[in-house]
Amino acid sequence: MRNYFILLVLVATTAWSQKGDAEQIKAIFDTSLSDAKGYDWLNHLSNQIGGRLSGSVQAEQAIEYTKEQLETLGLDRVWLQEVKVPKWVRGTPEFAYIETSPGFTNNVPITALGGSIATPAAGIKANVVEVQGIEDLEKLGRAKIEGKLVFFNKPMDPTLINTFAAYSGCVNQRYAGAKEAAAYGALGIIVRSMNLRLDDFPHTGAMSYGDQDLKERIPAAAISTNAAELLSTTLKLNPNILFYFKQNCRQLLDVTSYNVIGEIKGSTYPDQVILVGGHLDSWDLGDGSHDDGAGCVQSMEVLRLFKKTGYKPKKTIRVVLFMNEENGLRGGKVYAENALKSGENHLLALESDAGGFTPRGFSFDCSDKQFEQILSWKPLFEPYYIHLFEKGFSGPDIGPLKNNRTALAGLRPDSQRYFDHHHAENDTFEHVNKRELQLGAAAMASLVFLFDKHVTEAVAKPTGK
Amino acid sequence: MRNYFILLVLVATTAWSQKGDAEQIKAIFDTSLSDAKGYDWLNHLSNQIGGRLSGSVQAEQAIEYTKEQLETLGLDRVWLQEVKVPKWVRGTPEFAYIETSPGFTNNVPITALGGSIATPAAGIKANVVEVQGIEDLEKLGRAKIEGKLVFFNKPMDPTLINTFAAYSGCVNQRYAGAKEAAAYGALGIIVRSMNLRLDDFPHTGAMSYGDQDLKERIPAAAISTNAAELLSTTLKLNPNILFYFKQNCRQLLDVTSYNVIGEIKGSTYPDQVILVGGHLDSWDLGDGSHDDGAGCVQSMEVLRLFKKTGYKPKKTIRVVLFMNEENGLRGGKVYAENALKSGENHLLALESDAGGFTPRGFSFDCSDKQFEQILSWKPLFEPYYIHLFEKGFSGPDIGPLKNNRTALAGLRPDSQRYFDHHHAENDTFEHVNKRELQLGAAAMASLVFLFDKHVTEAVAKPTGK
Repeated sequence: MRNYFILLVLVATTAWSQKGDAEQIKAIFDTSLSDAKGYDWLNHLSNQIGGRLSGSVQAEQAIEYTKEQLETLGLDRVWLQEVKVPKWVRGTPEFAYIETSPGFTNNVPITALGGSIATPAAGIKANVVEVQGIEDLEKLGRAKIEGKLVFFNKPMDPTLINTFAAYSGCVNQRYAGAKEAAAYGALGIIVRSMNLRLDDFPHTGAMSYGDQDLKERIPAAAISTNAAELLSTTLKLNPNILFYFKQNCRQLLDVTSYNVIGEIKGSTYPDQVILVGGHLDSWDLGDGSHDDGAGCVQSMEVLRLFKKTGYKPKKTIRVVLFMNEENGLRGGKVYAENALKSGENHLLALESDAGGFTPRGFSFDCSDKQFEQILSWKPLFEPYYIHLFEKGFSGPDIGPLKNNRTALAGLRPDSQRYFDHHHAENDTFEHVNKRELQLGAAAMASLVFLFDKHVTEAVAKPTGK
Repeated sequence: MRNYFILLVLVATTAWSQKGDAEQIKAIFDTSLSDAKGYDWLNHLSNQIGGRLSGSVQAEQAIEYTKEQLETLGLDRVWLQEVKVPKWVRGTPEFAYIETSPGFTNNVPITALGGSIATPAAGIKANVVEVQGIEDLEKLGRAKIEGKLVFFNKPMDPTLINTFAAYSGCVNQRYAGAKEAAAYGALGIIVRSMNLRLDDFPHTGAMSYGDQDLKERIPAAAISTNAAELLSTTLKLNPNILFYFKQNCRQLLDVTSYNVIGEIKGSTYPDQVILVGGHLDSWDLGDGSHDDGAGCVQSMEVLRLFKKTGYKPKKTIRVVLFMNEENGLRGGKVYAENALKSGENHLLALESDAGGFTPRGFSFDCSDKQFEQILSWKPLFEPYYIHLFEKGFSGPDIGPLKNNRTALAGLRPDSQRYFDHHHAENDTFEHVNKRELQLGAAAMASLVFLFDKHVTEAVAKPTGK
């Protein structure tokens, strides 16, 4: 009889608590959809500022703007955290053509990969050898590569439902292709854009020479998917065609930049930090609306939505807009180093860096025990059509925070359109839907709310006790 | 011991069957994503033909084109089913302005509602009374309405996650507003576009005068959401402003048109029909890519995907491209009447008429027993991020097939962007993402495959036995 009574009490308590949770989550979603601010912030970041490559004037403007906006939210503290960032500049627009025979040329759209060196001032004109990935280089050997341009043409696999898996499956040709091809005597590389769609936009992105000697480095550019198809077909018809390209990008000295940070102090456990963030830098071609303006404004929304709905967090809720995710991850590293140094206790770090599309769920890099508790919240998200709760990758900027206590998480929006825009001229504001963006912000705020309310951590103690 | 043995056998059989199902579904998705045809068909329907209003030349061209394309698929039968359809024509472009004082006017974008009468040739200029829905008319009474234009300005509720629910919540002011307002002496009505976004596109859509006497009918137009906000604000500042509009649309006599039908005969149960369909007609403003070119080509894809993956259905799989969903539903009614007359046994009817966006699941109008079996298939859809299996509305064109045997179902794509484009000039091909469209086709084909393979119906008998 006594056990029966206890059971009843427990059930009643859970039901009440779930009801309170559902109501707070509904308030968050209602506010995000009917009284949005993230979309306006993104409009400014995208249309008044634009692409925000690390070290650029636009990156500086974005720091200033987001700091100002955070200061309007009535947070307990807003500050900048210094980060030295690399400064790579594109220079004058790139130019390329396919020469099928002397005097017969087709111009094709290319873009220098981020971090690449320039071509010689007169450009490079050479024969082309097509490969389907780095592993093909060894099969061909130096004899077939030396003195030529290597054309990496491995496409993203269209049958993978999660397009990030398709990206992972071929992005190494972009990141490491130049270094690897140089070892076989290539003069430069041309990489098929990481894009599932056939179109005319070349997609940039980070590449690295690693510790390669300066004089061994070769220039690297991405070509649009349509032009990659054209080049491939042309090569099949005549393997002796020439490809010309010219770019004058360069790496300058590191400059000072900042992570932008704001927080609401926890009422009960101010020493326990829940972090939400995205990265403020972007590539220079579009305006970085999806990558990652969306993640920044969604993260800012989390704190605004708490204020608007009158929710007072028990733990400290901190937004971090990281600098330099795209070509260095310096912001994420500096943040984590400082957190470690100051002994800060991060309960959760949640990043949005997969576009401002309809949220489908979250992926978690956490302990099984933490994940079990998270899974118990799934029903609370179902009214918002949020179903995916998986273990997996969280986010690049929060990666350096990984330890055996902090739960890391990533918002998982619908990924079908992401690589149509990723790192390209068409990553622009008009491709972000307001409702989709705001639903993502609300999903993030709801997860943060549940962590704040329900997760207790053994290592942390309430202050003043 | 014996029971234990039987259990083992059952488990093994289920596992084997599920594995076969998962493999066939994977083949369907792989083919749809890597060897698509639906997107090309839609490109032709949208860009070579365009908006396909019932009775228009474009509707005729669409009938011809889709019939031809179905004939290339090696189906067992392709045919046209005659349907008499209403023919409403828009005439010259509508024109409207707000006159704040004599000589001071703001032009605003409007569009005649489908089925509306014209204004007098010189247009109508009158004072405006704003209401938040039909129920406000009675509160105002004839004294405040007579001789004026009624401005129905109830917005879609942004807090509803399913945007179709928001549409349902205010579309009656568009459908029945003119008839209701005329009863209070209004001269015409202006309706806020059914659009969650603030933009400059007016959205048309069906309206009806019911059995209202011809001479009592008043003209009805939709105004863009931005202009609705402007009109509302202007009215608050000065209730005496005038609104002018002019349209010369009209209803002509019914004309002959067709449903386009194709089928693969069932190998074992040819008398059991599984129907997939969408509607071939659209409004005239855009090119009807989402509404419902997408549903048509997805339905055609179902049959092509079966052919491509070598799946030979046991039951008859039939695609129906219905004519005249938008302003009459005549195609759906004629199809159902004929099916009833010929005693055809429809096991399932599945419609796609909610846009070519990422599929989230299906809604079902079926018996509890049927739904139970459907729910057992949920895990097969999870690898494709398809989670929603709900009871609810299926589709307009298949509605007339409702009886107590046939399971009715509707594809449920992500609904966030649908009403940005619905019935407006920007329902165009470039707003359809190829992968999203093809994922929807694959989801439909997978559901049809499962019904074909696993659903047995008591009333149907294999032929020849």
